[in-house]
Parts: sequence; structure tokens; C-alpha cells
Amino acid sequence: MLLDDVHKYKDERRIPIDQVGIKGIKYPITIADKLDRAQQTIATINMFVDLHPDRKGTHMSRFVEIIHEYRHAVHLETIPLILQAMRDRLDARSAYLDFSFPFFLPKKAPVSELVGYFDYQCRFWGKLDEKGLDLFRAVTVPVATLCPCSKQISDRGAHNQRSVITVSFRTKGLCWMEEVILMAEGSASAPLFSLVKRSDEKFLTEAAYDKPCFVEDVVRELALKLDAHPSITWYAIEADSSESIHNHNAYAFIKSKKPV
Amino acid sequence: MLLDDVHKYKDERRIPIDQVGIKGIKYPITIADKLDRAQQTIATINMFVDLHPDRKGTHMSRFVEIIHEYRHAVHLETIPLILQAMRDRLDARSAYLDFSFPFFLPKKAPVSELVGYFDYQCRFWGKLDEKGLDLFRAVTVPVATLCPCSKQISDRGAHNQRSVITVSFRTKGLCWMEEVILMAEGSASAPLFSLVKRSDEKFLTEAAYDKPCFVEDVVRELALKLDAHPSITWYAIEADSSESIHNHNAYAFIKSKKPV
Amino acid sequence: MLLDDVHKYKDERRIPIDQVGIKGIKYPITIADKLDRAQQTIATINMFVDLHPDRKGTHMSRFVEIIHEYRHAVHLETIPLILQAMRDRLDARSAYLDFSFPFFLPKKAPVSELVGYFDYQCRFWGKLDEKGLDLFRAVTVPVATLCPCSKQISDRGAHNQRSVITVSFRTKGLCWMEEVILMAEGSASAPLFSLVKRSDEKFLTEAAYDKPCFVEDVVRELALKLDAHPSITWYAIEADSSESIHNHNAYAFIKSKKPV
Amino acid sequence: MLLDDVHKYKDERRIPIDQVGIKGIKYPITIADKLDRAQQTIATINMFVDLHPDRKGTHMSRFVEIIHEYRHAVHLETIPLILQAMRDRLDARSAYLDFSFPFFLPKKAPVSELVGYFDYQCRFWGKLDEKGLDLFRAVTVPVATLCPCSKQISDRGAHNQRSVITVSFRTKGLCWMEEVILMAEGSASAPLFSLVKRSDEKFLTEAAYDKPCFVEDVVRELALKLDAHPSITWYAIEADSSESIHNHNAYAFIKSKKPV
Repeated sequence: MLLDDVHKYKDERRIPIDQVGIKGIKYPITIADKLDRAQQTIATINMFVDLHPDRKGTHMSRFVEIIHEYRHAVHLETIPLILQAMRDRLDARSAYLDFSFPFFLPKKAPVSELVGYFDYQCRFWGKLDEKGLDLFRAVTVPVATLCPCSKQISDRGAHNQRSVITVSFRTKGLCWMEEVILMAEGSASAPLFSLVKRSDEKFLTEAAYDKPCFVEDVVRELALKLDAHPSITWYAIEADSSESIHNHNAYAFIKSKKPV
Repeated sequence: MLLDDVHKYKDERRIPIDQVGIKGIKYPITIADKLDRAQQTIATINMFVDLHPDRKGTHMSRFVEIIHEYRHAVHLETIPLILQAMRDRLDARSAYLDFSFPFFLPKKAPVSELVGYFDYQCRFWGKLDEKGLDLFRAVTVPVATLCPCSKQISDRGAHNQRSVITVSFRTKGLCWMEEVILMAEGSASAPLFSLVKRSDEKFLTEAAYDKPCFVEDVVRELALKLDAHPSITWYAIEADSSESIHNHNAYAFIKSKKPV
Repeated sequence: MLLDDVHKYKDERRIPIDQVGIKGIKYPITIADKLDRAQQTIATINMFVDLHPDRKGTHMSRFVEIIHEYRHAVHLETIPLILQAMRDRLDARSAYLDFSFPFFLPKKAPVSELVGYFDYQCRFWGKLDEKGLDLFRAVTVPVATLCPCSKQISDRGAHNQRSVITVSFRTKGLCWMEEVILMAEGSASAPLFSLVKRSDEKFLTEAAYDKPCFVEDVVRELALKLDAHPSITWYAIEADSSESIHNHNAYAFIKSKKPV
Repeated sequence: MLLDDVHKYKDERRIPIDQVGIKGIKYPITIADKLDRAQQTIATINMFVDLHPDRKGTHMSRFVEIIHEYRHAVHLETIPLILQAMRDRLDARSAYLDFSFPFFLPKKAPVSELVGYFDYQCRFWGKLDEKGLDLFRAVTVPVATLCPCSKQISDRGAHNQRSVITVSFRTKGLCWMEEVILMAEGSASAPLFSLVKRSDEKFLTEAAYDKPCFVEDVVRELALKLDAHPSITWYAIEADSSESIHNHNAYAFIKSKKPV
């Protein structure tokens, strides 16, 4: 039976569509980490193309076919191939994709050296059109921040809390997620761990007390490091701190002065 | 035109349904607080009834009509009326409702005495059937907790963080949400505020340092207070702490030993 | 006692901060609707300013004081005053705010004419700096979409589903949220209601069947209407459809060709 | 250096704690499916034990150590071992765990027979104490429902939508998640897929139109099937439907009449 393809109908409104496609599909994918180990994870994926003003609709199933084909190898080298496959098979000028996924690293506690897995939320997103590829990455790094004002004015203690640093960045040349994570963790009062013993807890408590920082300090410290990294050509940094004296968050944002 | 009422069809499977109705509707409602001020808020509402084995379906629109009628006065006295209206108009033996809403209280900072509104998430839920009314309330109270272990083993500082206490309870006789909130806030290391000045920050930092508590301590302290309250006939307490050395939470739960 | 003001310390890193302030505070506010009725609602608010490279930190409590003062009248005329208060009291060049809140309208069912409240998620956000005010609004409008392809190829029925249209826009001159909502609802297969009787259900089912539309059609139809509106100077439209044959969504996006 | 173990301190309040432990940790785990393939997924985990009235606190790090050890094999045979490890190492009478994770199955479209991965949200939770093991599973199955009333009263079409069925169950003897998923999908108007071509879309549209069902029908149909399954000793079924004429959901719930 031949079924009419309504998506191919001619549209008379003459309006190009910037982005059309699938949103929020979850798919098992395999990524690579710095030690070249394959890591299976689960991505939440958006995939869009532009649509010519003449065309009534795009073909939603082809996006899923493309993810399915590339699911065993999602990394910086294959993303341009995925985007090109989208342009080709959907007959589009520009293709966009956005993968968000948890990325687990074994993390060793500072004193006991016990190891637990720690999850960082990562995101790869980008666009391919006739002008070429424009690819971004982001990673979300939970840390501790200890308030410099609270430490300074209080006779004992200082309020501290869990904060989240999100770094979005573009690169030219090699730059591992692991490097950005380390720079972010080094810009806060202390890193977090999944597995800590009392010796680690003492170490982390004192470390945080010795290095108080506002959200303002976190983004500035990290901006200095990202400015100095040879492969990072653009960045945006957010620090979002679940203040333990408020029920709302403190937030700071710095964007790279380098052009996107 | 007479439209067939499919819901009234006879169902041949002979299976009673425990709960059927509407879920997740948002509605503007008016509640009353301790100072007898009307407070307009926005509730997320579930309303269910049981369904007789003979009946194919319930009438979803009638639930919405009932909320609409009672929206100007949702409080402990009207909830039985709402539940009875559900039983009557939906021809049901048992009726269930569940209202969740933010409840704002003006809160005065401990030293500066400046006032800001602070939101507590509240919930009223209950059931009315031939055996009578069974009504519960809950309130979620964000607080600070400072780790006793960290304080004890560290040469300086102590990790602390935002935690959330959720108290579910049944009452016989008067008991305001405000009373339960105060008991919860008094069971942690320190309360939170929306508006604090430096004098308050010093006070709260030192207060938390002087009263370290684990999630275990929070639920025990609060259990003692709730046990002593003359109107509270049953409770369940959860403390959920966004630990600032981990990326996961510490949790404790105590249930009243009195029967539900 | 004089407490040291650490935020005023001189920062030596010489890095300006783009945005710093408070995030995610919930506050009861009063807004105005087209019929000039005051509507009390609950906003989730972000407020940021830029920070001079010389200054170590901003003053978080002042943001809360400003919301508290203006909470009784948040509308298009007062937002510039709020932003100016932020610039003045935080000694900043640029001020940003972002209010998200549910907005309820009474909505009459198409045949029974019964009325229920319907919630639309709204957002006001903008920036004030030395170049002036740049203010945006957005509204999220849930609708039904019925698939043209499914209708065309199937011998009976057609899959349809709940979809969400989000319109972001800038205006010059008067434009009520209610107007944008009506344009969005008119661009889908059918609008949604909180309270419908069988007569309404028949009407809406047939209306949707008679007006199938892809997400592509929704954004194009609405683009035509927004282009024709005299006060709308820029817009971006998203349609996000919870397809009832997939567990992922179909999505389309059109941005105004007029410059921001 | 010997660090004081505050958790071991004697508590004088004499209040046992029902549950204490870690909440919301994300961990990479490996599960097994019906075809005996290992599937790597990511679990969100809660682990609790009871706490003796004499003891001030539990040892949070030991929970993480136990997950880390068992991460390569989480299935029905190892869960009792994990629970026993919790009892032993935390010196507790009762141990609770709760794992939630996406579970992907390859799913073949009904006509084209193309295959895409489809995610089902699963949950294993249970308790081990001196009375033995009490273990539950749940799976969340997205489906389509087409309204019987809308079909009956409308001259053309019928509103339909994405719905979610959640089945919680206990078993004695073998019962695969895949079996429960199939029973749930067979109780709605039509199943969903990640990858469908036009031939599939026609098939699914007509199948749903030919099998209208209310949320009431879904839970009753599925109750009949679960009652007939030899290994299922208890169940609870929820159907939650994102109605495409409302902005709220229709909901039904049936609980097994067999004792827990």
C-alpha cells in the first residue's frame, strides 16, 4: 500500500522554520573518557534541522534512525558525522544536536584514598551548516563553598553549602572534560566526593574553612584558569549556591570576553 | 442533541476501582493562617473517588466544578464538605483529596528584625468514607544542619548545609501549621530566612556552630516535641540533608508510635 | 558592634562579573490582567546585577528588600522602577530580572459555557543599563494538536495529543498576555479547558479533527499572526508536542526575522 | 591520628529511628534482562537501616561502599545479599533499599519492523529484617489511550493522548519485567514506539481508534491479567493520562485484593 507523504506537501505560507525535530528522547549511548575507556551512559537528546519554506514537514523517524546508528560511539569526532547525516537525510541546510548525559568518574577521597563513582552532568551541543561546525560542551560540577563574610564576622564556624558550577565551553585542540572538572573543583572551597571516611571529612572541613569563597570568587578563579587554557576558545561560567542561611540561591555568571 | 453518557455504561468485568479522578490540576485557592488572614495561593490538586464495579467510568468534570465552588475557602473546616460533595455528586462511597500549595509567612530576621516572606510547602490530604473522615497535613521546612562529627574532629570550622524537614501529621483539636513549623525549625541547627543582614548572618552562623545536629538528631528532637503536643495524634518526620561534602543526601525518618 | 563588610573589599583579580545576585526565590506578588483586576500569584524570581572588577562581592539582601517593596504591583510599568532600584542600591551599571509565575484566566467552555480557571505559565524578564531598557515576556500555552499525516493515511481516527506552545516576545505599545494566548490557541488544532462537559468534548474532538496540524504548522500559523500584530516587535515561538505514538516529543521553533 | 567517632556516642533520648541512610545517590549499575544480556544503566538509590535508640548516628559511608561492591550485578538474586550486607555492616535489624533506573528494550515497530530502543523506568525496592525479605518491583509504561466517550459522541475522530501506566508488584517465582510491560501495553489503546514509519503510524492510529479505553478500563484490564499471572502475589496499578482536552490528568488506581 502506498501511503501519502504529507510531510512532503508544498507549504504555501513561505515561512522557513529555524529548527524542527525530536526533543527529549532518552537513548543508551557509549562515550569515551580520558583514559580511553568506553563508558555506557544514557543521553537525553534533542535533534533539529531547519525546514525549507516550501516543505510542509520534516521526517521525525529519521532522527531516531541516526541516533540508533551512532549510539555506540558518541564523541567529539563523531558528532560532525551525526550532524552531517542529519543534513543529508533530512535534506536540510543546518542541523543541531544536543546530548545531555551523566558522566561517571572514579574519584579518590583525599586522605583515605577510597574510591567511589561520582557523577558529573555533561552536555554536548552544536550546529552544522554551510559555514561549518560550531560545537559546545558543558559540565556541571557540584562543589562546596564556605562564605568569606560569615567566616570573617563570626566568632566561630562559617556557613557553607553545596554549590553547582556549570562551565560551557568551546575548544580548538584537545581538552578533556576531566581537565575542566579539575579546574572547576579547584575554584571552590572544596570538592565533593561520594565516599568519604572521617579522615577525609576532617580534611575537607578544614580545607573549606581555609579557603572561603563567594560565588563571585568561584567564577573569577575559574575564569582565570579557563583564560589560561590553550585549547579553550570561549566559555561561560555559572556558580549556583544553595546557601545554608537562605531558602534561595546565590548566583554568579561570567562569560568569556573572547568572541564566540 | 442528547449525547450518550458512556461513563454510565454497565461494566461487565465486575472490578471495583479504588481511586479514579483528576490529577495535577492547578487552581487558585484561598486559605486561612493563624492570624486569620486570608492568603491567596496556588494549589496542585488530586481528587479521586472509588468506582462501583458496575459502572464503566466516573465524571471527571464534576471534580473541577467542586474545586471551583470551594476555591475561596479551603481549610480544615471545609475539607469535609468538599469530600462530602465529591461522594454525593459522584455517587461514591469514598472520596480522597490532596492539595499541595506554598504557604507564605512573614519572617523576622533574628537580629536586624527585618521582615521577608518565607515559603513553606504545605499539603492537606484525606479520605472520607462511611467510617468517617481521615485527614492529614504536612509541611516542608527548610533549615540548616551542622555536622557534629565534622565539628568534633576538625581543628576549625564544621561542614553545614541546607536540609529539608517534612512533617506529616494528624490532629485532634487545634494545631496551626505555624506551630509545627516552629517545632521543626527548633529541631535543627538553625532556621533559614529570606532576608538577613550581616548581624543576622553572624548570629545564625554561631547559633548553628553551637548546636550541631545529624539528621538523626533532627528527627529525634522533633519527635519529642510532637509527642508532647496535645493535639497531634500521629506524625511522620523526614529530614533530608543536602550534605556539603557529598553529592548525595543524608536522610532520617521517624514515624509516630501512636496508631494512625 | 561594627561588622566588617567583606563584600566591599577590593578585589585584585580585575575581572568584572556579568551577573551576580539571587536565584530561585519564591515570592507572593500581585499582577494586573487585561480587565484590570489584581491577581495574586507566586513568582519564582532571579535578580542579578553586574559587578565592578574592583569589588569583591555584591549585597544579596538588597535584592530581597527590593522585591519585598514592589511585591504589590509587578507589571510592565513597575519593572523599569525595580530594575532602576537594583542599579541604584547595588551600585551597578546593569540590572537583570526574571519573574516566572502562573497566571490564571477564567475560561469558558465552547458549548456548555461553563467557566473554570486555567493556568498559563508566564515570564517577564529584562535588563536595564545605560543603553536603556530591554524587556521580554513569555507565555506557555497548552493546546491540542492532531497529526495531519495520521489523519491522511488512516482509515479512521488520527492521533492527537497535548502540546505546549511557548511564545517569547518584545513589544512597543500595548499588548496583553491575553492577546498572545488567543493567537497561540488559534494556531493549534484545538484549545484546552479545565472544565468541559460532553457537549464541549464533542465540539473539541471534531474541531481538532477538522484542523490537523504538525508542530511545523503551529509555529508557522502563529508566526503569521505575530508578524501582523502592530505592537510586537520581536518574537520566538516553540511548539513541543507530547506525541501519542512516541515516548519523545516533536518540536518546532521559529524566531522573528525582525532584529531583537 | 585517632578521630573521635561521634556516631557511636550513646544517645540519651531513647528514641529508635525507623530509617536512616543515604538518599538520591546516582550510581552506574549493571542489571540483567530476560535474554540474559547484561545492561549497564544508571540508578538513583536510597539505602536506609533502622537505628538503635542507644546509638547517636549511623555510618553513611558504608552504604556507598556496599553499592560500589555490588554495582556489577544488581538483580533479584543479589538484592537480598545487598540488604544483608547493610544489616551486618551497619549493625542494624532492618535494611531498606530502593533502586530506580531506566531499562531499555529494543522494540520493533508493528509493520515496518524497524527497531529502536525504548526506555521504561523501573524500580526495585524492599526491606530485609528478622522476619525475612519483602521485595517489590515497579515499571512505568507509557502508552496511548483513546477516549471511548469522545469516540461515541463525536461524528469524526476521538481525542487520544500519551498516558503512563505504573505497575508495582510482588512475586513468588519467576516473572520478568518484560512480561509485565507486555501486559500493561496490551491493556491500553495502543503501545508507543521510539521509531515508527508511516505504515506503523497508520496501524497504530487505527488500532487505538478500534480499542478506546478510559483510565478506568486500563486499570481493570491490567488487573485481570495480573490476577491471572501465576507468580504475581500482589500488585498496585496506576494509569495517569495527559488528557488532550484538559491541562490536567485523568487518573485511576487499583490495588490487588490479595494481602501484601
